[in-house]
Amino acid sequence: MLINCVAYQDGLKIAEPSIHQISDYVTKPHTFIWVALKDADSTELQQMKEEFELHELAVEDAQHGHQRPKVEEYGDSIFAVIQLIEIVNSELHVGEVDVFVGRNYVLSIRNRSQQNFLGVRARCEREQHLLKLGSGFVFYALIDAIVDRYFPIVDALETELEEIEEKIFNQGSARSNIERLYALKRKVQVLKHAVAPLLDAVGKLQGGGRVPNACSDMQVYFRDVYDHLGRINSSVDAIRDTIATAMQVNLSMVTIEEGEVNKRLAAWAGIFAVATALAGIWGMNFEVMPELKWEYGYPAALLAIAGAAGILYWRFRKSGWL
Amino acid sequence: MLINCVAYQDGLKIAEPSIHQISDYVTKPHTFIWVALKDADSTELQQMKEEFELHELAVEDAQHGHQRPKVEEYGDSIFAVIQLIEIVNSELHVGEVDVFVGRNYVLSIRNRSQQNFLGVRARCEREQHLLKLGSGFVFYALIDAIVDRYFPIVDALETELEEIEEKIFNQGSARSNIERLYALKRKVQVLKHAVAPLLDAVGKLQGGGRVPNACSDMQVYFRDVYDHLGRINSSVDAIRDTIATAMQVNLSMVTIEEGEVNKRLAAWAGIFAVATALAGIWGMNFEVMPELKWEYGYPAALLAIAGAAGILYWRFRKSGWL
Amino acid sequence: MLINCVAYQDGLKIAEPSIHQISDYVTKPHTFIWVALKDADSTELQQMKEEFELHELAVEDAQHGHQRPKVEEYGDSIFAVIQLIEIVNSELHVGEVDVFVGRNYVLSIRNRSQQNFLGVRARCEREQHLLKLGSGFVFYALIDAIVDRYFPIVDALETELEEIEEKIFNQGSARSNIERLYALKRKVQVLKHAVAPLLDAVGKLQGGGRVPNACSDMQVYFRDVYDHLGRINSSVDAIRDTIATAMQVNLSMVTIEEGEVNKRLAAWAGIFAVATALAGIWGMNFEVMPELKWEYGYPAALLAIAGAAGILYWRFRKSGWL
Amino acid sequence: MLINCVAYQDGLKIAEPSIHQISDYVTKPHTFIWVALKDADSTELQQMKEEFELHELAVEDAQHGHQRPKVEEYGDSIFAVIQLIEIVNSELHVGEVDVFVGRNYVLSIRNRSQQNFLGVRARCEREQHLLKLGSGFVFYALIDAIVDRYFPIVDALETELEEIEEKIFNQGSARSNIERLYALKRKVQVLKHAVAPLLDAVGKLQGGGRVPNACSDMQVYFRDVYDHLGRINSSVDAIRDTIATAMQVNLSMVTIEEGEVNKRLAAWAGIFAVATALAGIWGMNFEVMPELKWEYGYPAALLAIAGAAGILYWRFRKSGWL
Amino acid sequence: MLINCVAYQDGLKIAEPSIHQISDYVTKPHTFIWVALKDADSTELQQMKEEFELHELAVEDAQHGHQRPKVEEYGDSIFAVIQLIEIVNSELHVGEVDVFVGRNYVLSIRNRSQQNFLGVRARCEREQHLLKLGSGFVFYALIDAIVDRYFPIVDALETELEEIEEKIFNQGSARSNIERLYALKRKVQVLKHAVAPLLDAVGKLQGGGRVPNACSDMQVYFRDVYDHLGRINSSVDAIRDTIATAMQVNLSMVTIEEGEVNKRLAAWAGIFAVATALAGIWGMNFEVMPELKWEYGYPAALLAIAGAAGILYWRFRKSGWL
Repeated sequence: MLINCVAYQDGLKIAEPSIHQISDYVTKPHTFIWVALKDADSTELQQMKEEFELHELAVEDAQHGHQRPKVEEYGDSIFAVIQLIEIVNSELHVGEVDVFVGRNYVLSIRNRSQQNFLGVRARCEREQHLLKLGSGFVFYALIDAIVDRYFPIVDALETELEEIEEKIFNQGSARSNIERLYALKRKVQVLKHAVAPLLDAVGKLQGGGRVPNACSDMQVYFRDVYDHLGRINSSVDAIRDTIATAMQVNLSMVTIEEGEVNKRLAAWAGIFAVATALAGIWGMNFEVMPELKWEYGYPAALLAIAGAAGILYWRFRKSGWL
Repeated sequence: MLINCVAYQDGLKIAEPSIHQISDYVTKPHTFIWVALKDADSTELQQMKEEFELHELAVEDAQHGHQRPKVEEYGDSIFAVIQLIEIVNSELHVGEVDVFVGRNYVLSIRNRSQQNFLGVRARCEREQHLLKLGSGFVFYALIDAIVDRYFPIVDALETELEEIEEKIFNQGSARSNIERLYALKRKVQVLKHAVAPLLDAVGKLQGGGRVPNACSDMQVYFRDVYDHLGRINSSVDAIRDTIATAMQVNLSMVTIEEGEVNKRLAAWAGIFAVATALAGIWGMNFEVMPELKWEYGYPAALLAIAGAAGILYWRFRKSGWL
Repeated sequence: MLINCVAYQDGLKIAEPSIHQISDYVTKPHTFIWVALKDADSTELQQMKEEFELHELAVEDAQHGHQRPKVEEYGDSIFAVIQLIEIVNSELHVGEVDVFVGRNYVLSIRNRSQQNFLGVRARCEREQHLLKLGSGFVFYALIDAIVDRYFPIVDALETELEEIEEKIFNQGSARSNIERLYALKRKVQVLKHAVAPLLDAVGKLQGGGRVPNACSDMQVYFRDVYDHLGRINSSVDAIRDTIATAMQVNLSMVTIEEGEVNKRLAAWAGIFAVATALAGIWGMNFEVMPELKWEYGYPAALLAIAGAAGILYWRFRKSGWL
Repeated sequence: MLINCVAYQDGLKIAEPSIHQISDYVTKPHTFIWVALKDADSTELQQMKEEFELHELAVEDAQHGHQRPKVEEYGDSIFAVIQLIEIVNSELHVGEVDVFVGRNYVLSIRNRSQQNFLGVRARCEREQHLLKLGSGFVFYALIDAIVDRYFPIVDALETELEEIEEKIFNQGSARSNIERLYALKRKVQVLKHAVAPLLDAVGKLQGGGRVPNACSDMQVYFRDVYDHLGRINSSVDAIRDTIATAMQVNLSMVTIEEGEVNKRLAAWAGIFAVATALAGIWGMNFEVMPELKWEYGYPAALLAIAGAAGILYWRFRKSGWL
Repeated sequence: MLINCVAYQDGLKIAEPSIHQISDYVTKPHTFIWVALKDADSTELQQMKEEFELHELAVEDAQHGHQRPKVEEYGDSIFAVIQLIEIVNSELHVGEVDVFVGRNYVLSIRNRSQQNFLGVRARCEREQHLLKLGSGFVFYALIDAIVDRYFPIVDALETELEEIEEKIFNQGSARSNIERLYALKRKVQVLKHAVAPLLDAVGKLQGGGRVPNACSDMQVYFRDVYDHLGRINSSVDAIRDTIATAMQVNLSMVTIEEGEVNKRLAAWAGIFAVATALAGIWGMNFEVMPELKWEYGYPAALLAIAGAAGILYWRFRKSGWL
């Protein structure tokens, strides 16, 4: 579905051509065209392929979807896949943006996501001195906008981790802790798979080695995106590391708690075993058991039993078993 | 066993020569020959070695089989080993394709596998403008077809993992979970051993450094295969990572469950210990035990016992032990 | 908030210009200006941006704060972010210093930290032969001062670890050990995130590859900082490694202790079970039980019970269960 | 101890010189000499050092023995250490072969091993067209033979692992499993220490970078050895990985089994506690306990006890505790 | 404290100058001076700094001590820090040697260690043809001597590990095993921190890339040291790996032992529970309990109880619980 299609010259909007007029603008000097599609079907993709002379393999990838994030060069043009991540009902939902960048055009296709990029276009049109730099700047602005949307995701995951951490030393919450940690780990994995390959790909655009033509002169900007991705990536790694430790701690806490329950069990079992053994002894049927005849034998026996139990209770208490 | 043997000129099939005619076609300009064998014995391999002047060490490797995936150069020609993986009765079955690629020929030998490559030949013959590119394109088409067949394997393993994950927090399924996770881990290991070395090998064909002659001009295509392998590889790594976590979680769940059983055991043991101790006390043979003479002593005693047990039951219930 | 602003010529202080005079000094030959700000607001940052012609992206980073440590080049100037770490109430508090270095100026902005750098300025003014080297030396002196302040943090963490280690084989302290190890691990993570990226960044200033202009001739000094960071980094790694082992050991100790409690429980349960069983037998109501008639039957029975319990006790003692 | 000493010219054996004649042959063109020693003492080593002008440090290493596998260049000659591994009484026994390779000679010294290399010499003498290539080919043939002898070791370890795996989910074999896994891990470590450094060393002979003179023209052959070593190395890594998982699984199985024992213990303890409590109640000495007078009171009581026990048994059975 | 100070010319000792004469010898051609200090104070260091024109940063490092092992170039001279490790009362004691190497001098400063290097000087003076090579050879001889002293440390740690391993499957030694493993791990960490950075540093002296002037022509010798360090490093890694596995095994053994204790506890509890329940039944006060009147009722009851206990005992024995 076409969202919009605008031609720019020297940083200024000059027209909103229809799809079939695209090829007219692509060849004009100092002009570039920026097309935004949403959940494009194969007919639209074929049209775009013809208008912009896109490479067959790139179009195939865009059509299949579910690609790993990447930035690939096909001759003078660039094909990039970036994942869009949203939190929907506390689950991570993964969408995808496919971007084709040539000297005179930018084509962005958004799939399976509710997030739009109208803000990016507005920003670009506002900053005319940068928009003059051409399609490379638009490419940067798109990546920058998507990467900035990763930060709240990281924050949400960190908040969730902190909530679990607060309960990690609580008794009785081991089961729910471990379930939540496991779910969180899965979410972090999703984010990691969006960030890590993109970090590598953007690393190649930020200079050091050869930089694709469409992105030259933009290296400082891509380094900024690279730096943001690096921060996200290291936060993600820190969360993963903490989850692993928290799981281990959780197991320790369960074992410690079990040990404490065992001690209590042992203590109470001991107290009642003594009471039962004593009662059993005075329940024996020997004929000659003088204490049985005593007037205050019974209360004395009860006292003896209570006393033995009491002494045990006090000792267990002192040694921390109860 | 020979499957087929076809000579192509400028992307068009020109003949189906017999094995002994091969050397005639190999020397023709703009012509290449594509031979497919299946479970070739040493006689056939020797024939091929002579017809195509294959390198001794490569032929030895093809004969021994059970090689790690690799792409090796011998002068102007390439020798590649790729593993074929099928699911047979929910076990992974590993076959092998050995491919010899020269400027004018492609020789593929399929071993220990039911999968055929008739579809690849059909696709190549359909896309004449690509088949014109020569043996390198056929090589690409073969690898691409094999790698595409890894995707359903990955999907099957992911599905299996998800099935286990659904039961991982269930009580009583720890033993079967751990058995299934262990079996799954072994399967993932098999796939990993097929994918990881191939990823390295194809990485060298996709450019960056020097690329073998037979694959030059094909780098964009091999990069596409490389990208697919990268996706598979990172999926495999994600599965491995999740299995490791799931095993740890499973151990935690067993320990948690054990702790709960321990608590229940302690609770019931406590309740009955109290009942038994009380009954024991009234079973003592002291002469002066006034309550034994009371008319309603017995029901009162039963009530006392039931009451004590009831209070304990209620307290255990409240503290979550029962 | 402006802390101070001084102009130096050939290693000597020549003036303390106001903010608006800065641009006059920046253009003078053999002169450089060193401005120190604290918790600068956006107005101050805009002023600085104009006076020193700082790059927009760097100023944005400085304004947002909470950056990863890094050293970035913008043309001839350098933008560095370094984390300041203090121990406040046994928690690690993370501040940030942003440093802009050009051929003729150093601008340092300290955020969210009580630590000041008056000592660095005093040292630089004392060592005139080094201050002559210009802004690069001031940059080195700042980094060196910050990195030197990491050492006491590492020492504090090591001391804390040693305190925990002393209790790790103690009985009954498992719960507090694991809580303290977890908290320590979190602190170490904070320090690691300050040190590791800085190590990479300083590694690029110490030579080997291309070194930014502002830091050339200073490579021996930056290698010294790099070496200090390397020591801190490897100490941090050692602490992390030891924490992981200590956690594992702690779990083992809990399990061992639990095993010992289990054995004692088993032993005492056995002793009382024997007593109770014997008492139960002599409490049976058979008419013909000759020992019940014996004069010394009761003491004999008590002796038998005590004897059986004693033998058990002695055997359990011998086998280390009690 | 000298095993044999043969001079070759153009791939043909021309003489079996005595040790003192060696230096005569070393200087002849198109000739090379191949000496094999076994457990050489220092006198023999000194002789060899003089005849071949070996480097002092290499001879010292050969004399000390117990070196890590390595391939070192000393000027135009090569000094290689390779470990020989044999299975003796299901333990791995590590021997060592030291090989000195120059343009005109190969000197191999076998230490602490029963394996001989007569087969290698026979193979070389058979393949004259290869033996013509000189000392480099002999060096290749020796390494190839040793590496091929690693394969059965890997197979034996894999078989042992599979035997353990079959029992890993069996009840009651946890102790022997863990002992066997530990012993296996130690064996794998021995093999790993033989293979991993050799893989690195042979990697340098197979091309890519500079290759020692004595091995040039042999790169395809060394790549073949490298490939074999790579296969062994990845098998070893897979075994190590599986051992780690198997140990973890084993621990899980022990914990699961313990949980099951705990449940059974709880169940039976419950059943008997109920019986004992009921019997205790009817053993109380209250005067007014009407059921005690009933004619069929006793059988009814037994029935009640058996019934209560039966119901419990049935419920425990149903919930899988028994 | 000065130990000795000797000037050499062409491999021969020519004088033992006092400290103030050093600068006279340093400038002579074909001469070099070798000074050995012990626990030098700052005055001595300042003297040396002036005599040899050492770099300020290197002298600062030497003065502070407790550096990581490293080899640094300052212009034409080298500054190296190497750790000396001794076993004192089965604890590892870490000393430090700081070595300054210039074209005409070697200055070694030994700190916090009882080990001396008189043997190194004696060896160097004996091997005049090598001492002729100048200060680089002395530098090599010092490193070589220190590295050779690491081998007995590694052997001691391996012996300690083997002693623990012998007890790892013993019952009842889990607590001391884990304590000893933990202590051993800490010692290994100390050795690792001495070896790993030195391995990197010496790796740069052994060729491959640029080699400092003072060490050129010595690359074969430094490669020998590098190889020794590599062996030590891989032994250390093997010990670490084995300790980790041994800790895991130890935990498994504790859990297994606990499981066995649990089973025994369950078995004995069961046997006595049966006895007690039976005795309780015959202790009930029903009027009509015919067996109580039988002449041989009591022996029969005892027999029944013993029989039931015996059957249980036999069954538990058979299933391995007792």
